[in-house]
Amino acid sequence: MKRSATAHWVGNLKEGKGTLSTQSRVLDQTSYAFNTRFADGIGTNPEELLGAAHAGCFTMALSGALTQAGHVPGTLETKAVVSFDTTALAITDILLQLKATAIEGLSEEQFRAIAQGAKENCPLSKALGAIKIDLEVTYS
Amino acid sequence: MKRSATAHWVGNLKEGKGTLSTQSRVLDQTSYAFNTRFADGIGTNPEELLGAAHAGCFTMALSGALTQAGHVPGTLETKAVVSFDTTALAITDILLQLKATAIEGLSEEQFRAIAQGAKENCPLSKALGAIKIDLEVTYS
Repeated sequence: MKRSATAHWVGNLKEGKGTLSTQSRVLDQTSYAFNTRFADGIGTNPEELLGAAHAGCFTMALSGALTQAGHVPGTLETKAVVSFDTTALAITDILLQLKATAIEGLSEEQFRAIAQGAKENCPLSKALGAIKIDLEVTYS
Repeated sequence: MKRSATAHWVGNLKEGKGTLSTQSRVLDQTSYAFNTRFADGIGTNPEELLGAAHAGCFTMALSGALTQAGHVPGTLETKAVVSFDTTALAITDILLQLKATAIEGLSEEQFRAIAQGAKENCPLSKALGAIKIDLEVTYS
């Protein structure tokens, strides 16, 4: 299966302007630029899109893992915080902050083990082999 | 620097419903689900968002590298094609298809070398250490 997206860029790094479009057109010539990435410009940037991809992948994987273990998942909410080192120009880590409603018959310890497995096995986590990924769980 | 995004999911894997929101609100409770990811549902999915992040990062990095080498970048357009193996449930590779307008005084060979460097050094490429990344260049 293939999924795609396109970036269009005109100009140099600091003053240039870019747009991003995805296959689904959820992003459709959406603006991005140096100042929406590294300063306070209003618009998107690669890091928050990576965060959306990772949060989305992990949360869906966790729903699947809970179902497979015989549970009915409650509400799952994950915030992915992508840290970027502006000196090294590198993504250093992603923190997944998960809030989940407690499921009857599933202890916090059991839930944490399933969530940890989803963190390790979701396709985005696996692709991001070069960076640290941490998971924080609130289960109540 | 930190950039974030949030996934919200209710229900099991196949019938459950999710939304994705980014810090910039370019995505704002945007729907995603099993069938927008693995079937023909209309909506976004983690893989196309990863493609947008990677295409955006690479194209911006290339503009920076050309500027640093003393050139005025022309139009740069990159399509990122993310391949997903639905049997292994794994992202296997990303193909970056770059189309660039020729720059006076910069041969195709020189341009390709700069593009290759941007592919290797852009933050998204580095983070995606576990998958294959290929680059195709059209320079004319």
